[in-house]
Amino acid sequence: MTNNKIILKEQDIAKNFLNINYYLKEKLGKMPEPPLHPATNQPLDPKDLEPLFAKQLIEQELSLEEKIEIPEEIRKMYAMYRPTPLVRALRLEKALETPAKIYFKNEGATLSGSHKVNTAIAQAYYNKSEGVQGLTTETGAGQWGSALSMACNFFGLDCLVYMVRISFKQKPYRKTIMKVFGADILASPSETTKAGKKFLEQDPDTNGSLGMAISEAIEIAASKEKIKYSLGSVLNHVLLHQTVIGEEAKKQLQVAGDYPDKVIGCCGGGSNFAGIAFSFLADKLKGEKSEIEFIGVEPENCPTMCDGEYKYDFGDTARQTPLLKMETLGSDFVPPADHAGGLRYHGIAPILAFLHQNQLIQARKYKQTDVFEAALTFAKTEGIIVAPESSHAVKAAIDEAIKCRENNEAKVILFNLSGHGLLDLRGYEDYLAGKLDNN
Amino acid sequence: MTNNKIILKEQDIAKNFLNINYYLKEKLGKMPEPPLHPATNQPLDPKDLEPLFAKQLIEQELSLEEKIEIPEEIRKMYAMYRPTPLVRALRLEKALETPAKIYFKNEGATLSGSHKVNTAIAQAYYNKSEGVQGLTTETGAGQWGSALSMACNFFGLDCLVYMVRISFKQKPYRKTIMKVFGADILASPSETTKAGKKFLEQDPDTNGSLGMAISEAIEIAASKEKIKYSLGSVLNHVLLHQTVIGEEAKKQLQVAGDYPDKVIGCCGGGSNFAGIAFSFLADKLKGEKSEIEFIGVEPENCPTMCDGEYKYDFGDTARQTPLLKMETLGSDFVPPADHAGGLRYHGIAPILAFLHQNQLIQARKYKQTDVFEAALTFAKTEGIIVAPESSHAVKAAIDEAIKCRENNEAKVILFNLSGHGLLDLRGYEDYLAGKLDNN
Repeated sequence: MTNNKIILKEQDIAKNFLNINYYLKEKLGKMPEPPLHPATNQPLDPKDLEPLFAKQLIEQELSLEEKIEIPEEIRKMYAMYRPTPLVRALRLEKALETPAKIYFKNEGATLSGSHKVNTAIAQAYYNKSEGVQGLTTETGAGQWGSALSMACNFFGLDCLVYMVRISFKQKPYRKTIMKVFGADILASPSETTKAGKKFLEQDPDTNGSLGMAISEAIEIAASKEKIKYSLGSVLNHVLLHQTVIGEEAKKQLQVAGDYPDKVIGCCGGGSNFAGIAFSFLADKLKGEKSEIEFIGVEPENCPTMCDGEYKYDFGDTARQTPLLKMETLGSDFVPPADHAGGLRYHGIAPILAFLHQNQLIQARKYKQTDVFEAALTFAKTEGIIVAPESSHAVKAAIDEAIKCRENNEAKVILFNLSGHGLLDLRGYEDYLAGKLDNN
Repeated sequence: MTNNKIILKEQDIAKNFLNINYYLKEKLGKMPEPPLHPATNQPLDPKDLEPLFAKQLIEQELSLEEKIEIPEEIRKMYAMYRPTPLVRALRLEKALETPAKIYFKNEGATLSGSHKVNTAIAQAYYNKSEGVQGLTTETGAGQWGSALSMACNFFGLDCLVYMVRISFKQKPYRKTIMKVFGADILASPSETTKAGKKFLEQDPDTNGSLGMAISEAIEIAASKEKIKYSLGSVLNHVLLHQTVIGEEAKKQLQVAGDYPDKVIGCCGGGSNFAGIAFSFLADKLKGEKSEIEFIGVEPENCPTMCDGEYKYDFGDTARQTPLLKMETLGSDFVPPADHAGGLRYHGIAPILAFLHQNQLIQARKYKQTDVFEAALTFAKTEGIIVAPESSHAVKAAIDEAIKCRENNEAKVILFNLSGHGLLDLRGYEDYLAGKLDNN
């Protein structure tokens, strides 16, 4: 009987976060450009970030060490749900009649139902250890807000979540989860911040956006001494924490006797793709495994890497954040209202933009109807209803497997199943009812 | 680092279903009374069941073999998600300051999110192997309907689900899941059956009930040759299939070097409690482990074992099923409309009623506000939002652990976490908002 799942032991959970910037500097010989201060356009002084982030997270943001040891308390908390399974999608392979092997890393099997909790736990830990009392953040669909709420609850931190207004209305049960973990949730834009009031003046009926919600969360953190801000993607330290995914996947593939030819992840801010990819990208940068391909998948409706401009831009709508060199659709970008496919952020992590510009990773975009169709195929074969975000990775994995069938190539495909879709069933319902636009 | 989880390999999935009736007959020397034909009040001829059930399932229903081998095709499908983790609730223990060890078997980590899929796969397999083309069933909250939809999809069977009308209205996303897997879903009572029409005549505004939905599903199956009926609990063969849970849990506790003093499960029809308990009950019936206790937990609003009458009763409202000797609140029982705590069936599995009457298992009932409070404690410590049904088991485990603290006893408590609550967040929302009656 072929194993469906490769399961590791708790002692196999990564002992270090893997820092891709070390490999870029040492092996590639160049690195992403630094963030700039929005007032001076000069590289940021780390001290400028201290009102917002714990010092240890700022150190990680700028670190050039190869590895950063994971504190035992974080590893113990990871052990509540990690290692997550690496699954061989045998039934999907059979349905596609492909000679390819398809593996997926199931980050939907975490406590919060997505990869987000990996960095939430780390960020809550470092903030707690520096005497912080609470964290503010933004959330769109709610995966990040619920992950951070859970992590704050574990560490006894307050949690204030600015939730994009359209999601606040449409996703009541994400709010319930955050409430279970004791978080406060506000619809963004709100009257609680200057930025929020301004957005509401400009458009009282706005649906809100991640960029607006970030502006609000940052404003609160910047104005209160014991309150810091927490971001669920984009920044170096967030991507760093997610490398626990790839470190496990690599060990699991070793157990199976395989190494991937193609590594696939969906891209909003980029953290789950980075999480699965960097362990293998490090091999490539070391000069091993030169043929491996990395594919970041975006929605047609928010094609940051595919169609964005590579330039310095703000992370938020009110232009309060440092300037980040990224591929961006502009900090005032708002995706179409009919877009159900997730991944709505206007920019991409600076590291991923740099990798894309340097042709170390590829970007690809799909229409939302096509990704839901792929998600349906996946559910029917593998029994898992994936998040709309993750369905982008599913679609790319299926396309690559079909290419293998056409070329009769037995490649090894690895994708990150970043989260389950049990709280995002409205998108499936609309797709099944033929209500989603084909874009 | 103490392990949080005990994970087995796929080859450790049970090779046999464990038949408790063998142990009752051989070791206890008596057995539950047989089902009766509703027209004659005489013990049922197995042939009478053939319009409704696959022959192999009827054989299992009546079997006195100790073990029934699990076909390889079922085990392969179980391997998509089994073995499920056995988790040591270290953080809950700490919060309760108890010397007890609390273990839970996480059946929320299955493909369908509850234990129901274990029997769904088995039932779909046996029906398919006998040339059946489709299955009908009923569902309340929707856990069973979604599990059977998934299993039918895997085996290429049609699936028609009669969903209790109040749930059909209140749980739209359970329907979405069933649709993803290609099932047809009707609100019950419906106009598609004689029984349904009669219920609607009697009360056009009825919320429906499991008993009514069963009447409809049975009527369809009885009238069509290639269509059979499938039940998600109560019957012997359903409880039999769920013993894969306890067989795994026993191995996992062996790995941990423990044996339970108390085994706990929530009880609606009784299948998840039977699933976790029977492997250990067999030890007790063999004369080993005489001290072990078994606790079935019911809602105050539907206290079948606690307050029901032990007698022959119908399984459905239209009185079409065989008469089963069970503890029952009456086949016309409908739980109060404000009841959010799950476990709404009027009867309990005949085997469990027999065990309860013979004091081999205990029964206990809790108010819904108390079980949601326990569920909140569990979520905050262990990070898992359990189904309202499972929260009954959580509440009993917490109470037993507190008793251990008071008596300074380091007992081993094992409970079955029968499902996650991500599609039942409305109950949590109402509890947090203070909207649930204290009953």
